[in-house]
Amino acid sequence: MDYVNDLAKTPRETEIIMNELVLPNDTNVLGNLLGGTLMHWIDLAGAMAAIKHSRKTVATVAVDSIDFRHPARMGEIVTLNAKLTWVGRTSMEALITAYAENPKTGKTILANRAYFTFVALDEDGKPTPVPPLRPETEEEKNEYCEAERRRLERLRKKGKL
Amino acid sequence: MDYVNDLAKTPRETEIIMNELVLPNDTNVLGNLLGGTLMHWIDLAGAMAAIKHSRKTVATVAVDSIDFRHPARMGEIVTLNAKLTWVGRTSMEALITAYAENPKTGKTILANRAYFTFVALDEDGKPTPVPPLRPETEEEKNEYCEAERRRLERLRKKGKL
Amino acid sequence: MDYVNDLAKTPRETEIIMNELVLPNDTNVLGNLLGGTLMHWIDLAGAMAAIKHSRKTVATVAVDSIDFRHPARMGEIVTLNAKLTWVGRTSMEALITAYAENPKTGKTILANRAYFTFVALDEDGKPTPVPPLRPETEEEKNEYCEAERRRLERLRKKGKL
Amino acid sequence: MDYVNDLAKTPRETEIIMNELVLPNDTNVLGNLLGGTLMHWIDLAGAMAAIKHSRKTVATVAVDSIDFRHPARMGEIVTLNAKLTWVGRTSMEALITAYAENPKTGKTILANRAYFTFVALDEDGKPTPVPPLRPETEEEKNEYCEAERRRLERLRKKGKL
Amino acid sequence: MDYVNDLAKTPRETEIIMNELVLPNDTNVLGNLLGGTLMHWIDLAGAMAAIKHSRKTVATVAVDSIDFRHPARMGEIVTLNAKLTWVGRTSMEALITAYAENPKTGKTILANRAYFTFVALDEDGKPTPVPPLRPETEEEKNEYCEAERRRLERLRKKGKL
Amino acid sequence: MDYVNDLAKTPRETEIIMNELVLPNDTNVLGNLLGGTLMHWIDLAGAMAAIKHSRKTVATVAVDSIDFRHPARMGEIVTLNAKLTWVGRTSMEALITAYAENPKTGKTILANRAYFTFVALDEDGKPTPVPPLRPETEEEKNEYCEAERRRLERLRKKGKL
Repeated sequence: MDYVNDLAKTPRETEIIMNELVLPNDTNVLGNLLGGTLMHWIDLAGAMAAIKHSRKTVATVAVDSIDFRHPARMGEIVTLNAKLTWVGRTSMEALITAYAENPKTGKTILANRAYFTFVALDEDGKPTPVPPLRPETEEEKNEYCEAERRRLERLRKKGKL
Repeated sequence: MDYVNDLAKTPRETEIIMNELVLPNDTNVLGNLLGGTLMHWIDLAGAMAAIKHSRKTVATVAVDSIDFRHPARMGEIVTLNAKLTWVGRTSMEALITAYAENPKTGKTILANRAYFTFVALDEDGKPTPVPPLRPETEEEKNEYCEAERRRLERLRKKGKL
Repeated sequence: MDYVNDLAKTPRETEIIMNELVLPNDTNVLGNLLGGTLMHWIDLAGAMAAIKHSRKTVATVAVDSIDFRHPARMGEIVTLNAKLTWVGRTSMEALITAYAENPKTGKTILANRAYFTFVALDEDGKPTPVPPLRPETEEEKNEYCEAERRRLERLRKKGKL
Repeated sequence: MDYVNDLAKTPRETEIIMNELVLPNDTNVLGNLLGGTLMHWIDLAGAMAAIKHSRKTVATVAVDSIDFRHPARMGEIVTLNAKLTWVGRTSMEALITAYAENPKTGKTILANRAYFTFVALDEDGKPTPVPPLRPETEEEKNEYCEAERRRLERLRKKGKL
Repeated sequence: MDYVNDLAKTPRETEIIMNELVLPNDTNVLGNLLGGTLMHWIDLAGAMAAIKHSRKTVATVAVDSIDFRHPARMGEIVTLNAKLTWVGRTSMEALITAYAENPKTGKTILANRAYFTFVALDEDGKPTPVPPLRPETEEEKNEYCEAERRRLERLRKKGKL
Repeated sequence: MDYVNDLAKTPRETEIIMNELVLPNDTNVLGNLLGGTLMHWIDLAGAMAAIKHSRKTVATVAVDSIDFRHPARMGEIVTLNAKLTWVGRTSMEALITAYAENPKTGKTILANRAYFTFVALDEDGKPTPVPPLRPETEEEKNEYCEAERRRLERLRKKGKL
């Protein structure tokens, strides 16, 4: 029997949902959600997905390019959804989507879609191995391949490949 | 055809999930989540469920008695779940549960279970009518009756019945 | 001579006053103080009264039902007053009132009145005994009896009686 | 009958008490309360005393020299007391004291004693007249004279006298 | 005489420096600066550079891939430097670097290097034209070309080219 | 060779620049930056200059009288500049200036100019010696003398001279 595969999780098992109400505190002078605040929420959502998978403390190590599609407004509800897409020896990539919901109409619109990479840390703050990820659906398998591709591209950019 | 019933929602349609990571900022000198911070999260989760149902701005009007069963600790993930249990003409009761998850073991334990009541407000800050709630499951129907009972008890206490 | 009674305090000796200015940061889109923020302040005021009595770290364990009588507005001064009403072996109940004062007129109105229960903790986070409370005035003695009654009601609800 | 003197207040009528619990959020790496956080609390306490007196929006215009006598520590209760000492045509001086209380021993020690000056503003943000202050006790009368002296010294320093 | 070129700025004229002290409030359970907090600071630094250039309200629209090279620690000073690298009709790209300085040794290490894109907004929140950027040094001219290349890559990825 | 003089720094080597964007969170009901928030930023800027000089943890011990010359407004950029003016055996004085920049016009105006004194602390929180400061320019030498004068005045006021 394979102990490590016992710890393996599917992307769905790492899923995290966060709902945040956009308060005056979180907005600029036009009443739009600050980009930095949204990235802070995205980072927390992704980190929690990585913690659920690894059962370790995690740190953010990389962010893939992000587009801010639609600005969320004061009073709107932002729903963040994070789940792991790819897992290496000590690092994990999460896809986080953020939808903004108009409180009056209930209409939701994609505000952001981002890939964040986290590393698992032991108690001395050193990288430590994590269990494998077991993509199940067709979509999850495609995400896994795309993540692999992004990772190679990142390594190539840094001249490590 | 009944327009108002068209707007009616089931408890499930009002459901909100929030995940919060307990940071140093949120704890007391023993590393336990502050009671007031947890109530702040519970209030936001319940308010978002009430906004989803009413499509209005809402304000907290009452809190039923709360027991703090288990203290959440720094580094734990708190998962809050809110959904409406009962709806009157302008007010809505939400049940909010909060589970604390140990990041190392994944073990979750009930930290809090609370009933909060919200009122829908129009643009002048006056109470405004909300659509009815349509409980579906046996459990939802029991919650509805229990909420009715709590409401009568509150009115009796205040000498309004 | 009775050492424990020497440590006993009157409700007045546990009294805590807090004044908070309602800033944009603390309000919803209508400019009303968030219910969760007010509960956070109430929790801190009650915790400080319990610390003054017990000289221990304390944690919130229960909240009796709360009515939000009047919403405080941005720019108003909220005056919180907390003092202990009842003390058991390791737990303490505090009554906290919150008045909102209109800065222009000076008119104050009761915004909230709540009973919070705290437990004293030793350095391992375990409940630890606290000195007795010695109600003096007629009002304090009535509060003590009422608190006893609420406590029994809570235990009965939880099936512990 | 003198309308303006009817609005006059004694220093005691402007008094504000604030209690703040020093949380991890408010401290530096040694667990001491940040000087800037304490000044922020002092400013809020003084501003509320000035609002109580003037029934206007107020802004901080000057701070007399401050000594930090004793650092408050994480877990301590800081009790701030503010009351007006002097009032001019549109400006008001407040004395704010801050005592730090050790939660275990109940021993309190003076952490800070500061004089802040505020100006009352009308709805266009322009300085606006405030009622006179009527010092009653010997100490209040001395404070009034000392405040007058400090004010002349400030004007002299700025070359306005 | 060319009015628009009069408004043109060099990258140096848009430069912003921010120093932030890493407080307990900003760290995870290992005492490392949260990735989301760092991104929040990076976003503010970049936004201020874009405001200095455009004299408009700005919103974050895109983030190029980011590597977190070195975790900043509690008590360290993080120095952020932002300046514009490229400007289009309504959008502006900023390069933001973040160095972490060990307070004991004074040794600094690159913590982060990121490209953020902002759009200038008029009072209705619509994109509005900004003055051109005039790179001066060899390095600034290279940055400008690289930014152009990244922009085309982003457009290609989104299928807009 | 003199080891201590090797550690000596010029005022310029201790310089810290901070830029802060005034967000809704930082303002009063008129949209002006809170005096307490500005003092909090000033304290952090001065503390970082003192850390850069001493390579120690520092605590605020005194603030010289402050004038708030001009209120910063929501949406403005506040640029803080701190550098040491004087150094004693264990304490250091910093001059901090704060300029508010109108985002539309780019016009800057002096908002605040303050002298803060910090003490260096060892790991037990006790005062610990710091290297000397070596003023270079005529202005820095004048500042050094003025700081010496202020220090004597403070000691005289406290009856320590």
